[in-house]
Amino acid sequence: MTQPEALRTLLESVAAGQVTPGDALDRLKHFDFEPVGDFARIDHHRSLRTGFPEVIWGLGKTPAQIAEIIKVMRDRTAVVMATRIEPDVYAEVQSKVPDLRYYQTARICALGTPQVQHPGKIGILSAGTADLPIAEEAAVTAELGGFQVQRLWDVGVSGIHRLLSNRQVIDAANVLIVAAGMEGALPSVVGGLADCPVIAVPTSVGYGASFNGLAALLAMLNSCAAGIGVVNIDNGFGAAMLAGQIIRTAVKLHE
Amino acid sequence: MTQPEALRTLLESVAAGQVTPGDALDRLKHFDFEPVGDFARIDHHRSLRTGFPEVIWGLGKTPAQIAEIIKVMRDRTAVVMATRIEPDVYAEVQSKVPDLRYYQTARICALGTPQVQHPGKIGILSAGTADLPIAEEAAVTAELGGFQVQRLWDVGVSGIHRLLSNRQVIDAANVLIVAAGMEGALPSVVGGLADCPVIAVPTSVGYGASFNGLAALLAMLNSCAAGIGVVNIDNGFGAAMLAGQIIRTAVKLHE
Amino acid sequence: MTQPEALRTLLESVAAGQVTPGDALDRLKHFDFEPVGDFARIDHHRSLRTGFPEVIWGLGKTPAQIAEIIKVMRDRTAVVMATRIEPDVYAEVQSKVPDLRYYQTARICALGTPQVQHPGKIGILSAGTADLPIAEEAAVTAELGGFQVQRLWDVGVSGIHRLLSNRQVIDAANVLIVAAGMEGALPSVVGGLADCPVIAVPTSVGYGASFNGLAALLAMLNSCAAGIGVVNIDNGFGAAMLAGQIIRTAVKLHE
Amino acid sequence: MTQPEALRTLLESVAAGQVTPGDALDRLKHFDFEPVGDFARIDHHRSLRTGFPEVIWGLGKTPAQIAEIIKVMRDRTAVVMATRIEPDVYAEVQSKVPDLRYYQTARICALGTPQVQHPGKIGILSAGTADLPIAEEAAVTAELGGFQVQRLWDVGVSGIHRLLSNRQVIDAANVLIVAAGMEGALPSVVGGLADCPVIAVPTSVGYGASFNGLAALLAMLNSCAAGIGVVNIDNGFGAAMLAGQIIRTAVKLHE
Amino acid sequence: MTQPEALRTLLESVAAGQVTPGDALDRLKHFDFEPVGDFARIDHHRSLRTGFPEVIWGLGKTPAQIAEIIKVMRDRTAVVMATRIEPDVYAEVQSKVPDLRYYQTARICALGTPQVQHPGKIGILSAGTADLPIAEEAAVTAELGGFQVQRLWDVGVSGIHRLLSNRQVIDAANVLIVAAGMEGALPSVVGGLADCPVIAVPTSVGYGASFNGLAALLAMLNSCAAGIGVVNIDNGFGAAMLAGQIIRTAVKLHE
Amino acid sequence: MTQPEALRTLLESVAAGQVTPGDALDRLKHFDFEPVGDFARIDHHRSLRTGFPEVIWGLGKTPAQIAEIIKVMRDRTAVVMATRIEPDVYAEVQSKVPDLRYYQTARICALGTPQVQHPGKIGILSAGTADLPIAEEAAVTAELGGFQVQRLWDVGVSGIHRLLSNRQVIDAANVLIVAAGMEGALPSVVGGLADCPVIAVPTSVGYGASFNGLAALLAMLNSCAAGIGVVNIDNGFGAAMLAGQIIRTAVKLHE
Amino acid sequence: MTQPEALRTLLESVAAGQVTPGDALDRLKHFDFEPVGDFARIDHHRSLRTGFPEVIWGLGKTPAQIAEIIKVMRDRTAVVMATRIEPDVYAEVQSKVPDLRYYQTARICALGTPQVQHPGKIGILSAGTADLPIAEEAAVTAELGGFQVQRLWDVGVSGIHRLLSNRQVIDAANVLIVAAGMEGALPSVVGGLADCPVIAVPTSVGYGASFNGLAALLAMLNSCAAGIGVVNIDNGFGAAMLAGQIIRTAVKLHE
Amino acid sequence: MTQPEALRTLLESVAAGQVTPGDALDRLKHFDFEPVGDFARIDHHRSLRTGFPEVIWGLGKTPAQIAEIIKVMRDRTAVVMATRIEPDVYAEVQSKVPDLRYYQTARICALGTPQVQHPGKIGILSAGTADLPIAEEAAVTAELGGFQVQRLWDVGVSGIHRLLSNRQVIDAANVLIVAAGMEGALPSVVGGLADCPVIAVPTSVGYGASFNGLAALLAMLNSCAAGIGVVNIDNGFGAAMLAGQIIRTAVKLHE
Repeated sequence: MTQPEALRTLLESVAAGQVTPGDALDRLKHFDFEPVGDFARIDHHRSLRTGFPEVIWGLGKTPAQIAEIIKVMRDRTAVVMATRIEPDVYAEVQSKVPDLRYYQTARICALGTPQVQHPGKIGILSAGTADLPIAEEAAVTAELGGFQVQRLWDVGVSGIHRLLSNRQVIDAANVLIVAAGMEGALPSVVGGLADCPVIAVPTSVGYGASFNGLAALLAMLNSCAAGIGVVNIDNGFGAAMLAGQIIRTAVKLHE
Repeated sequence: MTQPEALRTLLESVAAGQVTPGDALDRLKHFDFEPVGDFARIDHHRSLRTGFPEVIWGLGKTPAQIAEIIKVMRDRTAVVMATRIEPDVYAEVQSKVPDLRYYQTARICALGTPQVQHPGKIGILSAGTADLPIAEEAAVTAELGGFQVQRLWDVGVSGIHRLLSNRQVIDAANVLIVAAGMEGALPSVVGGLADCPVIAVPTSVGYGASFNGLAALLAMLNSCAAGIGVVNIDNGFGAAMLAGQIIRTAVKLHE
Repeated sequence: MTQPEALRTLLESVAAGQVTPGDALDRLKHFDFEPVGDFARIDHHRSLRTGFPEVIWGLGKTPAQIAEIIKVMRDRTAVVMATRIEPDVYAEVQSKVPDLRYYQTARICALGTPQVQHPGKIGILSAGTADLPIAEEAAVTAELGGFQVQRLWDVGVSGIHRLLSNRQVIDAANVLIVAAGMEGALPSVVGGLADCPVIAVPTSVGYGASFNGLAALLAMLNSCAAGIGVVNIDNGFGAAMLAGQIIRTAVKLHE
Repeated sequence: MTQPEALRTLLESVAAGQVTPGDALDRLKHFDFEPVGDFARIDHHRSLRTGFPEVIWGLGKTPAQIAEIIKVMRDRTAVVMATRIEPDVYAEVQSKVPDLRYYQTARICALGTPQVQHPGKIGILSAGTADLPIAEEAAVTAELGGFQVQRLWDVGVSGIHRLLSNRQVIDAANVLIVAAGMEGALPSVVGGLADCPVIAVPTSVGYGASFNGLAALLAMLNSCAAGIGVVNIDNGFGAAMLAGQIIRTAVKLHE
Repeated sequence: MTQPEALRTLLESVAAGQVTPGDALDRLKHFDFEPVGDFARIDHHRSLRTGFPEVIWGLGKTPAQIAEIIKVMRDRTAVVMATRIEPDVYAEVQSKVPDLRYYQTARICALGTPQVQHPGKIGILSAGTADLPIAEEAAVTAELGGFQVQRLWDVGVSGIHRLLSNRQVIDAANVLIVAAGMEGALPSVVGGLADCPVIAVPTSVGYGASFNGLAALLAMLNSCAAGIGVVNIDNGFGAAMLAGQIIRTAVKLHE
Repeated sequence: MTQPEALRTLLESVAAGQVTPGDALDRLKHFDFEPVGDFARIDHHRSLRTGFPEVIWGLGKTPAQIAEIIKVMRDRTAVVMATRIEPDVYAEVQSKVPDLRYYQTARICALGTPQVQHPGKIGILSAGTADLPIAEEAAVTAELGGFQVQRLWDVGVSGIHRLLSNRQVIDAANVLIVAAGMEGALPSVVGGLADCPVIAVPTSVGYGASFNGLAALLAMLNSCAAGIGVVNIDNGFGAAMLAGQIIRTAVKLHE
Repeated sequence: MTQPEALRTLLESVAAGQVTPGDALDRLKHFDFEPVGDFARIDHHRSLRTGFPEVIWGLGKTPAQIAEIIKVMRDRTAVVMATRIEPDVYAEVQSKVPDLRYYQTARICALGTPQVQHPGKIGILSAGTADLPIAEEAAVTAELGGFQVQRLWDVGVSGIHRLLSNRQVIDAANVLIVAAGMEGALPSVVGGLADCPVIAVPTSVGYGASFNGLAALLAMLNSCAAGIGVVNIDNGFGAAMLAGQIIRTAVKLHE
Repeated sequence: MTQPEALRTLLESVAAGQVTPGDALDRLKHFDFEPVGDFARIDHHRSLRTGFPEVIWGLGKTPAQIAEIIKVMRDRTAVVMATRIEPDVYAEVQSKVPDLRYYQTARICALGTPQVQHPGKIGILSAGTADLPIAEEAAVTAELGGFQVQRLWDVGVSGIHRLLSNRQVIDAANVLIVAAGMEGALPSVVGGLADCPVIAVPTSVGYGASFNGLAALLAMLNSCAAGIGVVNIDNGFGAAMLAGQIIRTAVKLHE
């Protein structure tokens, strides 16, 4: 029973004289204090409006905890996913949830069959092969969320023709996610070519003065191609969430 | 004459024998080397696809230079705007371009009448009154670009009910721009309430450990509300560009 | 009418058949959206609960704006104060608000006579004479808030006996505010001597590797004297607010 | 025998002619040079005035050293505690101190039964589940110090209704400790709702541009909710010490 | 067929009436989209123009992946090399590519016999013995690229006579690579003595305030010896690439 | 008389019995201690080997000092130049050195007619118009040093076709200097296209998270186009020195 | 009467029955609280033991304040000095203290004739002419303190022979102060040549990645020449204080 | 044969006609190029003038390498020492050099019996027990160098009486080394009490905002107690070197 239904039921009981106003007041207050239900309500809302399945952030959770949460979630939602899952963690979780799939490069495990549920296309570009884990985190997240994804890997700016000769990927996308480490220059070039929103994901790929992604992050924030939105270093997941939100807003705009 | 038209004309002259292939080749090469024309072509494209007028970044330009550029631009485009214009600079430029308007808080001057040309609504929130110059830079830019804007000022998180009691602004928006300095917490709260893309603009408002907006910038990049796109410190202009791009992508998705 | 009372009234109307369950549900949803009164209540609460007058942050406001706000505020509250007011700004504001007083070192201007309204004593220490503007900002703010203040200036750690020979100030205080720039070591020493909460205020006093107060800030955050609360660089005002809050909590604990 | 008593006894021996002034002078000098006794005196004082048991900082000590210190301490004080104790360290120490308890999330081990010895209530909030180790370090420290604690976990700002629906925890507290990582926004929101001192604890929870808690630290120092005291990153222990000190100052104010 | 030739052919077809202007326009637009060949050309060019073999960046690749890439490459090029190869990785790769050599200090493995193919001499200096891995990475890379290298190790500035008494190495070089960690002062001294381009390589050698090479990097960027080019921290490979490029430009200048 | 000649003369005097060995020993020791001559020798060498005129760094010198140094220098060398000269400083210096020329954008003033003295061509690119002062500092320095320069302004990466359509500038250069602020991405793209050494000059152009050129500096140090040499922020002068050194080394390699 | 004597007198009064043990206990407690004399003693000590006159730090003091303090001090001490005095401040102070001298480069004003009062020699080196204000601050401070100073200016490491040909200055010194900005390399080279303590003073000379002296500071802290003591950026005064302290300790060692 | 003697001999040969001026000129040039002897001379000098044995920096060297160097060194010098030696490394080295001693806390291993060879006393203070490894590194280094050391551990500023009651250690020292982590405040307090040079050693002890010793480093550089020399984070060795140099300069001053 959803919370609006529960509320309506309660109010009908009051109207029917089955519950006194005083008792109803107490129970209404209680609505705020039942933590689990409240938590679920919020999560349910989040799931509805973001177009993404409920997500478990794997970092710092034990395999046992992850397995337990997955088991609870799978009854409530079609797709369950967990991010930042290393192979050994997956192995342990999978021993308890046998049908759990693993997207190795993306370090994501999931239950349920992703199906394209939304119009439009999310183009995802990566500058180098070392950026793939983050780019794939974005791609798999978007696909599990029901969005259509087109990947374009290894089109870093030091070989600009690789990018230019694949310009049709840029032209075909409704939103672009661009992941790059080191000097983080790819979003600027893409932003100059694209006719759609660009989401830049700095990655921690690099060494020395990359300072774990700081160089790429600063580059993207200072892009001369106005109108690029930047997410946290290595946050492929968040980029996919934003991209999905952009497409969903487009859908709503025309409902 | 647009470049595609120019190209077609040239090719027709070749077909008509009025221009030899060799001369056409030279002139085609020239197409690439005539900087002004090429520059204009790109700008024209930019104008078409971003939905924003051509923009002059005022910082570091003399009033004379700004006036000159405005005069050239006004023949090519309906709306001309310049950002980061201090009052004394405006006064000087306006003496040379008498019909130039000034948006004082936004530090923007413009020619041409902005008209709503796009569907949807861009909600713009600011945390404190000191964030207004940046929030207004976003708002005026969006309006000059033909977008409908709804402003909600002074709803910082330390008085959370001010925000909650204006939730209808959040609910009505198709994209949200949230400007905040100091601890930069407002986008996180808004991101948890909103059902549309959120663009976070850190401002340099603050002192001491705000380090000229660094504190707000880091807070926004680390937002626990997944799916927020961040732009550079004080970059209200870029936020409006991204917001406009998001709405235009929505339009294109349904064409 | 408080929110619980409003709820009870609504529920009683439902029980009485005066409101249908469906209408009640709609109105319950609306409870979150009644803005103005709630906003006012919060502001009123802030003044009530912090024990401080309403405060204008002077930075970035014109003298005309400050004068206008003061005029509005003086009808609502006994004491009006504005911080970060430079002498020339004061001169202009005072020409419009003739009875406005100026605390030059603290860079505060105020209306209304501060009177001790709270028990206890706030001890305020400064390491060097250059820290005085910040220490005085704290002291004057506290006094305008109705708290009793005891000052102890120029007791930096490089002349430790100056501090030790004034230990009675430390012993007599119920809360201590300690302002220091440069190496910011004074709060650690005071924290080891004091039997009450210590609030550390790093100041931007110094040069070179003080990095505008960063050195002092980091030192205070790392104090080996456990249990020190740190505020922003140069934030004498915030330190006084916290000190006042601590004394008020003590009062409430015994009501 | 306390030091004041020892002093009095010595002086009485002088008055009685049992000790010559010269010998007394030597022994008085000795008072300063007996390191253990002096050390103990200070610690005893610290224990008395902070309301907390003597504490061992576990980081960088061997299990053997920790066990040894615990054995010495347990004769002097009712409650002994050690912080930053990993499970494997606890296992080794416990093999030597069989009755040692372990608070796993808080990474604290302790001897002695904590009992509420002070009036008032310390409310402790955490933004996310990953902040629990630090929030629990604060909670367990406070409880071992004899303070009453009320916990409120997982009320981060991206789901603001979770916080608002538990507002009674904020209202009931005499001091609040708020632990948050990532963007560190929770203390600002709580500071706007609370009518008591707020202690903010940035945690190192996050990745990328959280820079191990720097983002949360800066956010808290820049809080627009004036009057928040900040402690070091991950310093739950220090926050509890400051909270306890605030309650004890309240008690003394009314003695 | 080069692009200019292709253009000319197309234009001649238009002149001959074999292609209509409209079709030509379409095909002209397409000139930007012929991907694969262009891509290959670039790669080939890179190898040709840098004078270096194709290189595998070993970091983050599995031994199996490295072995596979080496096997593919060895058919295409005389020399194959991989950088950042730890001894245990080499052991595994070598079990699959038996004739693979290992340069232990440089952490480089390679196939093919390096032969001096270019005129001139690259002098490589290191400040301390701990800088050797980076200096050797530069030296081995240059040698595998067919350049003549002269090494001068352990000539840090705190024993300036060691450097001065080996000045003939500086005098004999056509390009100098100078690797130094800690205070990174060596390039400044060498820059003052040398009559050729100097490439400075900061290394991460040091501790404490060296901040993993930041101190050396900043020192080199601020060198008072004008005309020094700096590469990333620990980037011996990049320094060799630049040095080789400088010598190749010299060769081309005289062709 | 050069030092080697002076040495030979001295030794011949010893051989001729005109100077005793003891006196010669004293004078030889003196060779090390005659500061002016030694100083001059070094400067002379610097001028000879760098191919650049002697240069005055204008920052922090009074117009009177600059004029005085120019007067001394003009007798010793064909071209005298001073960098970082603001217009008002030039006006004052020019009143004392009437034939002094001023390169306004480059902020350089100079005496003497620059003539091309070296083979080869230095290509200089700038990303935006705001980078011009630094790019011109490089260009004018190189020209005054006798090198041939080809400029290519305003070819930032967000409009990549502007760069690609001017590729012949890149192809024609023997060394490239690339100046860019903001995200500093241009050197990476150029490095991928060029067949010659690339010198990257980060500029302080930008705002907010550009941190006065830090973003561009880090981007260039992390360039994925291996073999780029980076100079200090805004150091157009140093870039020209390095470029000149590279061409001169090429010349020497073939002597 | 020294504290030990006072203690003995008190104890003798107890033994004599003139003071009761209880009163003695109270007075013993009071020994810690006799402020003024102790304070004065410390100040007197500071002047005595550092060998330097009392010093006024001019930054942030008005000319009137500085003049007033000088007038008070001149009666107590032979030499009075104030640092960080800009020319216009000096002019105003001098109008009130007519015999005040000004050391323009050092930005120091002083009263009293400095005379060499200590053995030994302090060698002071500067890397560039722009470092002179800081080097002279050290030199004038030392001379006013009665120490013999030998200056050696403009011996930066990029022209190493200038330093080597003046090695007798290094050899003759008992302590060396080395001031350098930009890459801050000079102390490392000097530290390798010198047979006495070296004090390194980073200066804020430089631009771009010098970050106002941070580059030089880090370089000096990481010097490979072990045994160099570093002071704050631009702290010539502190360097002179430490140098004087070293010479005075030498004197005391032989008393 | 010293270099001056060699020079005289050469000149006498020229005077005697045994060597022609030309040959002498060549050999004079050669004087600069005899590397080994010069190198050895410098090393020998270093040992002579610093008063310390030759030292091996253990970090990054294999046990085999360390053992080999020790074996070579032990023939040349009375005391051989290696720093930064972890217990397992010592165990391996000791298996090859059986008489090698280990100073566990200091992480130093050494051969030879240290004997007091110099006058004066080096006082070494540490703030906390966690600073002991660095403080002991300084102490053992100084003792192995033949200096007399007095230790004073655990006198951090939060228990200031522990320091004050041991003031005789400060008074008795000719040089003081003060090691502190966290807020790094101890050197400031000691600097205010001491009548001798103070060397401050920041340690990396701490967590969170200590940033691995940065907080302590900045505090010490900004000490309000003028005249403190700071060394690198955790550089106990360097502090001992500087302290020894100070005492040796004192000795030389009186020879």
